[in-house]
Amino acid sequence: MKTRILLTIGDFNGIGPEIILKSLSNRSLTKKYDLTVLSPVSVLEFYAKHLRKKVYADDFNVIPVGTEKIKISPGKISAEAGSFAGLAIVKAVEMCMDKEYDAIVTAPISKEALNKGGFNYGGHTDMLRDFGNAKEVCMIMVSDKIKVALATNHPPIKKVSSALTREMLQNKLKICCSSLKNDFAVSSPEIGVLALNPHAGDGGVIGNEEQKTINPVVKALKKKYGNKAFSFSLAADAYFASNTYRNYDLTFAMYHDQGLIPFKMLAGMDGINYTAGLGFVRTSPDHGTAFDIAGKNSAGEKSFILAIKWADRIFRNRK
Amino acid sequence: MKTRILLTIGDFNGIGPEIILKSLSNRSLTKKYDLTVLSPVSVLEFYAKHLRKKVYADDFNVIPVGTEKIKISPGKISAEAGSFAGLAIVKAVEMCMDKEYDAIVTAPISKEALNKGGFNYGGHTDMLRDFGNAKEVCMIMVSDKIKVALATNHPPIKKVSSALTREMLQNKLKICCSSLKNDFAVSSPEIGVLALNPHAGDGGVIGNEEQKTINPVVKALKKKYGNKAFSFSLAADAYFASNTYRNYDLTFAMYHDQGLIPFKMLAGMDGINYTAGLGFVRTSPDHGTAFDIAGKNSAGEKSFILAIKWADRIFRNRK
Repeated sequence: MKTRILLTIGDFNGIGPEIILKSLSNRSLTKKYDLTVLSPVSVLEFYAKHLRKKVYADDFNVIPVGTEKIKISPGKISAEAGSFAGLAIVKAVEMCMDKEYDAIVTAPISKEALNKGGFNYGGHTDMLRDFGNAKEVCMIMVSDKIKVALATNHPPIKKVSSALTREMLQNKLKICCSSLKNDFAVSSPEIGVLALNPHAGDGGVIGNEEQKTINPVVKALKKKYGNKAFSFSLAADAYFASNTYRNYDLTFAMYHDQGLIPFKMLAGMDGINYTAGLGFVRTSPDHGTAFDIAGKNSAGEKSFILAIKWADRIFRNRK
Repeated sequence: MKTRILLTIGDFNGIGPEIILKSLSNRSLTKKYDLTVLSPVSVLEFYAKHLRKKVYADDFNVIPVGTEKIKISPGKISAEAGSFAGLAIVKAVEMCMDKEYDAIVTAPISKEALNKGGFNYGGHTDMLRDFGNAKEVCMIMVSDKIKVALATNHPPIKKVSSALTREMLQNKLKICCSSLKNDFAVSSPEIGVLALNPHAGDGGVIGNEEQKTINPVVKALKKKYGNKAFSFSLAADAYFASNTYRNYDLTFAMYHDQGLIPFKMLAGMDGINYTAGLGFVRTSPDHGTAFDIAGKNSAGEKSFILAIKWADRIFRNRK
């Protein structure tokens, strides 16, 4: 049986509709997966015409979201686009929770538009957690070369330290461990945990989060999961410079740039975003709405297609 | 005329003496440069005997520092080692300020030992600034592939934001610009300035240091140095992922891991540390005291030799 995958349209003024249409015109892809787009039909029609893109209507399904009378303005922030983006996500989660579908691949949204459209969330991850009834989720950047999970998604740097609590770290590390087993078929996961501060805090001289927060959590988890399951906090620069990351199935970074700089340098264009800890599979491409090139027929669908492939791979591993 | 370079012994319980002796046994190096070690003679004798290292006393000079009656304990933190490390730095700076020598290459010190030894400094950079009578200096990681300067050296992450002031950024960016011209022979320097926060703050949604601190400084400097001399703050992950760093002569990072993770990934073992903004040249290898392998004859001198070569190169560029 083909994996049943929902594609949410994302912000319809961004590149979401374009990369979805480009992906759906790829018949080897539509043959392999059962793909359904959650979108106003008029959005797909508008972009298909605008981009002169030939799509084969029989190759995939569309489930309409919201009304069809909408104003599409590529590149613009609008409350309407944010509202429809949010509605598509809510609908997709609902259908996966009801087991009608197996996975969701989300096109990019704008946080600003989403909030203007009435959804007061920081992004996909928070929405999926709440509507998916999960206590905690963890964002994992996935590629064949390296996997990087984030303790904090993208708070400003000055708020990273206060966002790191023992409870949150413990929950996220547990989710990563389960995800490696269930989603990525790693039988005995080993996770490299990075330090927050330079030189791993240098014995407490440079910050004490390693001693007070990170390492006590690791110590407790080692007892439960085994000594090799998690490392104590490691200095991040040496970890990547000496290729230590290759010794671990996953790297657990404390904040966005610490994890995303090396991830993107190593994975190049082959990275996707996975939300671990949900009752269903959700992936997304490794880029944003790209308002600056929206409607210009220059967006690449490679990462979106990769996100579809990983969604299928993860769903099959789960089975 | 050969460049006159002072080598400070660093913490004599670390790998400093070993890498200095290994470097000095390299006759192509000692022929090319006028090298003088600042160290108690007994330290050099101890390690030469201990490591069974043959050194040619005629190939270099030694200027004794402190007393000769000392206790050498490889791998141990001691106030005495910290005190002697500090004395060697002070003496080296003095001799360069008096124009007796052209450059200093420093072996690694331990911050903890240094403080126990009576020097209340965070490390080399602060000491060199104060004893070298400089108002501000800037740490630049140097390699042939990439140069990365740091706005903040290694405060804990939670203190990075408050450490970034307009005045400090302006001073450091000016130092970097002058250093590229005078020390690295770049006629029209272009500096890539990284954002502090993920997604460059996303228009103020993720922190406001970009809007309030970094970009106003860049704007003012552009007026004085030209539009291309400095970039406005750039999202760090995309900057390295898309190789944007290659468009700039130097990358100006806001904090340790943001700059050092990509630098070490790109430069590998070919990086050295340079202190810009001083009246003399100072370089150091890209590693610490490595107490865990001190006295075991397993430390590599490659980075120290590179630091000597760069010190000479920078001094010649300055002339």
